[in-house]
Amino acid sequence: MTASSTPGTAALQNDSFLRACLRQATDHTPVWLMRQAGRYLPEYCATRARAGSFMGLATHPDLATEVTLQPLERYPLDAAILFSDILTVPDAMGLGLSFAAGEGPRFAHPVRDEAAVAALAVPDLNRLRYVFDAVRSIRQALAGRVPLIGFSGSPWTLACYMVEGAGSDDYRLVKSMMYARPDLMHRILQINADAVAGYLNAQIEAGAQAVMVFDSWGGVLADGAFQTFSLAYTARVLAQLQRSHEGRVVPRIVFTKGGGLWLDDMAGLDCEVLGLDWTVNLGRARALLGHCKALQGNIDPNVLFAPPERIEAEVAQVLDRFGRPHQGEGTGPTHIFNLGHGISQYTPPDHVAALVQAVHQHSRRIRLP
Amino acid sequence: MTASSTPGTAALQNDSFLRACLRQATDHTPVWLMRQAGRYLPEYCATRARAGSFMGLATHPDLATEVTLQPLERYPLDAAILFSDILTVPDAMGLGLSFAAGEGPRFAHPVRDEAAVAALAVPDLNRLRYVFDAVRSIRQALAGRVPLIGFSGSPWTLACYMVEGAGSDDYRLVKSMMYARPDLMHRILQINADAVAGYLNAQIEAGAQAVMVFDSWGGVLADGAFQTFSLAYTARVLAQLQRSHEGRVVPRIVFTKGGGLWLDDMAGLDCEVLGLDWTVNLGRARALLGHCKALQGNIDPNVLFAPPERIEAEVAQVLDRFGRPHQGEGTGPTHIFNLGHGISQYTPPDHVAALVQAVHQHSRRIRLP
Repeated sequence: MTASSTPGTAALQNDSFLRACLRQATDHTPVWLMRQAGRYLPEYCATRARAGSFMGLATHPDLATEVTLQPLERYPLDAAILFSDILTVPDAMGLGLSFAAGEGPRFAHPVRDEAAVAALAVPDLNRLRYVFDAVRSIRQALAGRVPLIGFSGSPWTLACYMVEGAGSDDYRLVKSMMYARPDLMHRILQINADAVAGYLNAQIEAGAQAVMVFDSWGGVLADGAFQTFSLAYTARVLAQLQRSHEGRVVPRIVFTKGGGLWLDDMAGLDCEVLGLDWTVNLGRARALLGHCKALQGNIDPNVLFAPPERIEAEVAQVLDRFGRPHQGEGTGPTHIFNLGHGISQYTPPDHVAALVQAVHQHSRRIRLP
Repeated sequence: MTASSTPGTAALQNDSFLRACLRQATDHTPVWLMRQAGRYLPEYCATRARAGSFMGLATHPDLATEVTLQPLERYPLDAAILFSDILTVPDAMGLGLSFAAGEGPRFAHPVRDEAAVAALAVPDLNRLRYVFDAVRSIRQALAGRVPLIGFSGSPWTLACYMVEGAGSDDYRLVKSMMYARPDLMHRILQINADAVAGYLNAQIEAGAQAVMVFDSWGGVLADGAFQTFSLAYTARVLAQLQRSHEGRVVPRIVFTKGGGLWLDDMAGLDCEVLGLDWTVNLGRARALLGHCKALQGNIDPNVLFAPPERIEAEVAQVLDRFGRPHQGEGTGPTHIFNLGHGISQYTPPDHVAALVQAVHQHSRRIRLP
């Protein structure tokens, strides 16, 4: 990847998301939704049907571009996020990712013994070219409307799937390896961290204007194990990321689902934004982190099943808990509105419209002097 | 239920668990394991096969007694826990509890609309007589070896299953009702709280020497919703419980899985013990709560898949994080060792022996001056 592969850099028309990431003032609280290009949108389902499968969508840059832009056509969202999966990196390592209908991801070749761990290596990034092509294509299609976020799973979260071979409700296999053979687990995590760093840097080179590390399963770890097996390797990723591209800082977001107990540990991460799930009190998180991190989150996605007037009330509560964000020059506490987890496939699309509108309206209201 | 139904009250030979619950000194840290009578024990599987089903076991006091005592025959555990299920109360409300082979619990008649909520009522405790009979039978069989713990699901946790009709990974139905129709949810929770209180009081009358409220799904709630929809109703249960029986205080334990962020809210609960899962740092929890609550927990059950020497090291780490418990007269910070969640059915039974021995040995070591 070289800088010459950067797409046409149209001036950014809405930079509220990037400004909030950098703890700079904005006239409203920017909002985007995890998994905003997803099955709750009929147009997404139509494109996916044409693609034949989830990976068919993800591996065709034109289709990935189409679905990435779909939610932006419906809602005045303040950021786009690359349509892809958190597990593309282990797939490129040769583990054989697939998505059975109605089920989660599955690896054909899980990593469960010393030989399988020894065989692991940082993958050739050419095997992930479809992702970087999608980033370039999406940037072109966005034409500066809003910034584009790239992402990856965290080293620990990738390891969960790599060892379990699929989702899990007890993480027995991956934790058995961690407790019985910490040496093997550390080797997997080092490789994952270096692979994720290279992967995110290539997304940045291709045009991603911010990057997010999804530590979806960090929260299943015990206190102590989280710091050793998840946080330390997220830090190893962050240390390798390039800080700017196209003359702009590229903000780095870290989201550990279920990580609310470890916010003081995460305060030390070299990143600009921390994502929070709905169990965290935003006011307390601001008191703890507002001096050093922008905060992203954190409404329960199930709020979207309530009628619009209840959604508005819950949105106002989340915004009010954070309180008035930084105003004026310089930097200070800022908030990026999001769900505390991916949007449910059963969400009524018009309820999303109500949420986005409520965020924009109420967040302007709380900025009034 | 009357006091005359109390079983022969043999003197308690090992009261370390009850003393630790009351923040009194013990010469070792007492240990028991959530779901200690369970599928990891071949003798449990044999009894269950004879019973034909899980509910067959739970509803026959002789079989429930047999499986309750099985882990005590193998390991020097410091407490027994009634063999039963957290969902017996909604079953007695007429919701039709069953356990399909290899699956979790299921209700034939979930509570999903206003009419179903209106039809709910505190059940006749006679429908739960099999539980109280089991408590009496187990007390007799224990003959004072160790104390017996009774239990129930929390009002919120029962509501999750009652509305979802089964386990869930997103709690969409119960949270949809909570956000869209909080009035209906409050009615369910009031009924559940009063039913649970009556149920636990009847267990105490029958001979349970401590009672535990399992708020297994409190941790899925958003900050704010937890306090309103889970904690407040756990408090409503606690306020109705009788404080002593047979001339002894009956300690009350509350365990909210995933509730580590709300320990300061839980400090205000009128109970003696708080259960903690493995995400909580025991040292910090002691600093926050040690002046008012005994703490129970909190090793990751997956540690039991590591070899015995690693189990011993992890046990020592948990005990050391809590630190030296209160010694001498009066009361002070105490710890009851447990898992942070139920034991896995795949656990090797000899690893449990290693864990129990390590708790007893290392906890005596840390008491040395």
